Amino acid sequence: MELVNKERSLVSKVMDGLIAGIVEDRYGAVLPPQDVLSKEFDVSRTVMREALSMLLARHMLDVRPKIGTRIRPMRDWRMIDEDVVSWRFRAKPDKTFLRDVIEFRGLIEPAACGLAATRASAAEIVGIRDAFEALSQTSPGDSGCQAADTLLHTRILAASGNQFFQQMAAIIRGALSLVNPILNERDDGWRNIVQAHGRVVDAIERREAKEAEAAALAMIEYTADELQRALSPEPAVQR
Amino acid sequence: MELVNKERSLVSKVMDGLIAGIVEDRYGAVLPPQDVLSKEFDVSRTVMREALSMLLARHMLDVRPKIGTRIRPMRDWRMIDEDVVSWRFRAKPDKTFLRDVIEFRGLIEPAACGLAATRASAAEIVGIRDAFEALSQTSPGDSGCQAADTLLHTRILAASGNQFFQQMAAIIRGALSLVNPILNERDDGWRNIVQAHGRVVDAIERREAKEAEAAALAMIEYTADELQRALSPEPAVQR
Repeated sequence: MELVNKERSLVSKVMDGLIAGIVEDRYGAVLPPQDVLSKEFDVSRTVMREALSMLLARHMLDVRPKIGTRIRPMRDWRMIDEDVVSWRFRAKPDKTFLRDVIEFRGLIEPAACGLAATRASAAEIVGIRDAFEALSQTSPGDSGCQAADTLLHTRILAASGNQFFQQMAAIIRGALSLVNPILNERDDGWRNIVQAHGRVVDAIERREAKEAEAAALAMIEYTADELQRALSPEPAVQR
Repeated sequence: MELVNKERSLVSKVMDGLIAGIVEDRYGAVLPPQDVLSKEFDVSRTVMREALSMLLARHMLDVRPKIGTRIRPMRDWRMIDEDVVSWRFRAKPDKTFLRDVIEFRGLIEPAACGLAATRASAAEIVGIRDAFEALSQTSPGDSGCQAADTLLHTRILAASGNQFFQQMAAIIRGALSLVNPILNERDDGWRNIVQAHGRVVDAIERREAKEAEAAALAMIEYTADELQRALSPEPAVQR
């Protein structure tokens, strides 16, 4: 037990040292090999491996065959703990949680769609269009339906070019995993939702930021209304 | 080494089991004692302790003397990895990072201020006013200046009542820790910033959501302009 705790505090100390080195750009693009690092920090290879795995899990490092342990661009560092997000969305949602999710999506996604219309590269726009085509070919309840929807939203957030919006993708995915099973029960609802996505994609393609924003807001409001109807006859979700 | 890896995968398995029990509400408000849990999961006390400490670190549990290990309300569960946020903000910011921070704050904080004007309890409004008074009594460069600013912003986000906005406090704190040392170098700039905060607090107190939103946006834009000036003669930050 003693040893476990002692090892743990050593691991934290090594992590801190590695991070200081990374943010001060002491290593360049690739970390020295593990045994060199172990010697530099004067710790066992087990401790060093553990510290590196903590940074790896947070998308701060990348192991590349033949190259070594590459330092990932800081914008990729995971500020969101995706485990906690997925646990949080696994629980049965109460009304306040649904309200909060809708409020948050209603803020983040329209802004991200507007930025995507302005900043997306040509390749990103093709990717968004492709994801939409895939989505529109699914039917509610299809196994691929959730994945296609998730991919489309993730690509739009990525195309916003803003690393904070990109990080929020984990929360948006959680929201989709929560609402889709409820909405997919109605076939006509699904068609309308696909059309609402189509209007967002069209506006992004035409580089119309304001229109993309408005279409995204309409899409989320439609989802919120449908959700409310699906969960009726309980009292309305306050928005 | 083998043992370390085997223990680690056991820890994950136990965490999964605990979380399943929590989200399915199998434990009620307080977890059974550690030795009971160890027996239930058929693992050593070391493994159980490790699994519990992972949940503790994520604000999912609370250890209360005489009561035991309480399950925290799900809205407190930490979706943001505050370590990564603080590492990210420790690095020297580039222009894109500054742009992204300003864009994100410009979206989150005005919305949170608007919600706070609508939803803050009387006690929360008193807390916001107190934090503002403390801030306005500091001078730039004071040791308490950063803490006072952080407290004010954190209280406003808390008063929004939306758990996603509340979670974003970690990112906002990072942003403040980045911009304040730059802005505090100019005394007149600081006075204007305090006044800009005052207008936000006044509007929240008067329950004027739209006004609070507009005042918050003005405050962030002022900060962004000052930041740009402080960083000149380099080319302007694109917004």
